Amino acid sequence: MTLASATRAAKDAALLAMADTLAKAETAILEANERDVGRAEANGTSAALIDRLRLNPDRIAGMVEGLHELAALPDPVGVVVRGWTNANGVQVRQVRVPFGVVGIIYEARPNVTADAGGICLKSGNAALLRGSSSAAESNAAVVEALQAGLVEAGLPAEAIQLVPGPREVTNELMAARGLVDVLIPRGGAGLIDNVVRNSQVPVIETGVGNCHIFVDAGADEQMALDIVINAKTQRPSVCNAAETLLVHAEIADSFLPKALHAFAANGVTAHGDSRVAAYGDVVPAEETDFAKEYLSLDIAVAIVDSLDSALQHIRRYSTGHSETIITESQTSAARFTSEVDAAAVLVNASSRFVDGGEFGFGAEIGISTQKLHARGPMGLPEMTSTKYVVTGSGQIRQ
Amino acid sequence: MTLASATRAAKDAALLAMADTLAKAETAILEANERDVGRAEANGTSAALIDRLRLNPDRIAGMVEGLHELAALPDPVGVVVRGWTNANGVQVRQVRVPFGVVGIIYEARPNVTADAGGICLKSGNAALLRGSSSAAESNAAVVEALQAGLVEAGLPAEAIQLVPGPREVTNELMAARGLVDVLIPRGGAGLIDNVVRNSQVPVIETGVGNCHIFVDAGADEQMALDIVINAKTQRPSVCNAAETLLVHAEIADSFLPKALHAFAANGVTAHGDSRVAAYGDVVPAEETDFAKEYLSLDIAVAIVDSLDSALQHIRRYSTGHSETIITESQTSAARFTSEVDAAAVLVNASSRFVDGGEFGFGAEIGISTQKLHARGPMGLPEMTSTKYVVTGSGQIRQ
Repeated sequence: MTLASATRAAKDAALLAMADTLAKAETAILEANERDVGRAEANGTSAALIDRLRLNPDRIAGMVEGLHELAALPDPVGVVVRGWTNANGVQVRQVRVPFGVVGIIYEARPNVTADAGGICLKSGNAALLRGSSSAAESNAAVVEALQAGLVEAGLPAEAIQLVPGPREVTNELMAARGLVDVLIPRGGAGLIDNVVRNSQVPVIETGVGNCHIFVDAGADEQMALDIVINAKTQRPSVCNAAETLLVHAEIADSFLPKALHAFAANGVTAHGDSRVAAYGDVVPAEETDFAKEYLSLDIAVAIVDSLDSALQHIRRYSTGHSETIITESQTSAARFTSEVDAAAVLVNASSRFVDGGEFGFGAEIGISTQKLHARGPMGLPEMTSTKYVVTGSGQIRQ
Repeated sequence: MTLASATRAAKDAALLAMADTLAKAETAILEANERDVGRAEANGTSAALIDRLRLNPDRIAGMVEGLHELAALPDPVGVVVRGWTNANGVQVRQVRVPFGVVGIIYEARPNVTADAGGICLKSGNAALLRGSSSAAESNAAVVEALQAGLVEAGLPAEAIQLVPGPREVTNELMAARGLVDVLIPRGGAGLIDNVVRNSQVPVIETGVGNCHIFVDAGADEQMALDIVINAKTQRPSVCNAAETLLVHAEIADSFLPKALHAFAANGVTAHGDSRVAAYGDVVPAEETDFAKEYLSLDIAVAIVDSLDSALQHIRRYSTGHSETIITESQTSAARFTSEVDAAAVLVNASSRFVDGGEFGFGAEIGISTQKLHARGPMGLPEMTSTKYVVTGSGQIRQ
């Protein structure tokens, strides 16, 4: 059976079998991971990277649970997106089909191996998984377990493959136009930029988020505080966390002292420009602070004199991920949502909601920050292409 | 007013003004075109290319009519693709927005200048038009007329710009990541391949069509003849014209003599393999004939022993544009439409229907043969991206 035409029943059975074989392989996977972690520690890898690399029974249970959740989601393949009948009786149907072969290039987290493999399988795509060398043994153990499940369920083991080897292999992957249909890089800005610039295979760009929150004049200050603290601290290491706070000059006297106090109380270091420094203790902000995706308990803070200045600042520094305005003004909200060019624009809500899970997609391969194909959180339908099926009874064109 | 937030009324008024200024500039445009044609003739350009380059009052009237038709089409910008309210009351809307700046790289036809400029305007995109040097004076005259219409209607003239200059300018366009949002090459295989391989700007690949027709065992022979002749001869120079005929061995004795006779009667040269030659006069086919997009009154012909052989042949030579089966068998039709990987798969209908106009899109920038973003005929909605607008009343993530 080819993967692309596998029924939902066959794919779901495989996902459940993969969940079982993954759970059963827990000891082998943890041992492999121990070796990866040991090597990373010997190489002096940072504690943050080691934390991403490390698996434990909870994380493996999370991977298993993820495969169960995928099995419960509807199959995107075969969905008729639209259809009509031409005047001459020719029927046209636009139907979702798999891309074919999807390459995922990712960094240290070995749990991506199971998540990405499962998402590709459910969407009918063969997965070429190019993980980082630091996680090589963990990834190999996970893929071995997934393949055992595939085979048990009667699908080809090759549907999910690891791409091992030296750095040059990534270049080969990026040159494999015609063999690989789509490449999705997941990781830091350097990885993504390299793939986007050098790939001849079409790329879906994911995830760097230098996300701003603009607190407008006349905003509800308590709402603004709650959202700023939530968007910064609820999970600082992710791409939809806030990285810069822009405060309208008219509300600065009242709002900024409270905001700086709340940052201190929540362990957040504020990097402020000279105008902000007048309102409390801040680390002086450099130009580079405003371009930075901290991914930590740090935030850049600036005062802007108008909505226009805020829009200009965002235009300059935004990575096009998620941008937020806190406002009571209908006019400001309308201008902000219309003029800010980003995958998501938010009014009076935390940017942490820009997420496949929060959007109800059930599974997420990443958050696209490009404008082609998919923009924002990508669920299963975004992992497919379409095909027009045209059916007639002998019609010819006049 | 910025183009991206221009209302439909403003854009339609501009399209009608552009139609007027274009019609008024007829003499100037024809004079400029005369100079381009004269230069091409002096350079020994082929008659076919000169025909594509040449404008006349009819072709200019066609461009004017195209702008009128665009004004009558619905605005893709602002369409809410989907939307929902999360359990916590946060509202999510996915809304169509312009890409921003669209670069079109195209060959000799100067009418593309008006068509592409109009489509970009209607979809809220600024157009950077990189035409061929052979049409430089014609394109400049057309753009000057379009810009006069834009200005008359109060939109910025820069919304539609020609990108003149030497060959290296195309490379600059392909490197302008962050400044140009999408590149769309329109033209021959060489042009498209160059852009697809070398662009750092996301590309929408259009149009090379090595389109096959497979006549299955038990097909309605008259239907097959009608469709083959229509798909080959109705307009041979376009990408959805048939280029290869595959005949099931079981129907060859009966069907092939009729097909070869019909080709001869319609001025079509058949390039047949040795098995086909047994049924009538053919030019011996080389391997390269089956890989060729003739775009002329030529067709490659082969006998295949089964549906599987046909699928295999198509997998090998298809450019993923439009592939047709003529069959009475439900099973063959289902397998063909499922297993052939192309933008459009047709059952018992002419591939000439795979066209934005025939699909009722009203305007077409090209036919995408890639799997990302848009596949098949691209209308106005395919010239947009989307943005998530998320609206709350202070919600934070738990």
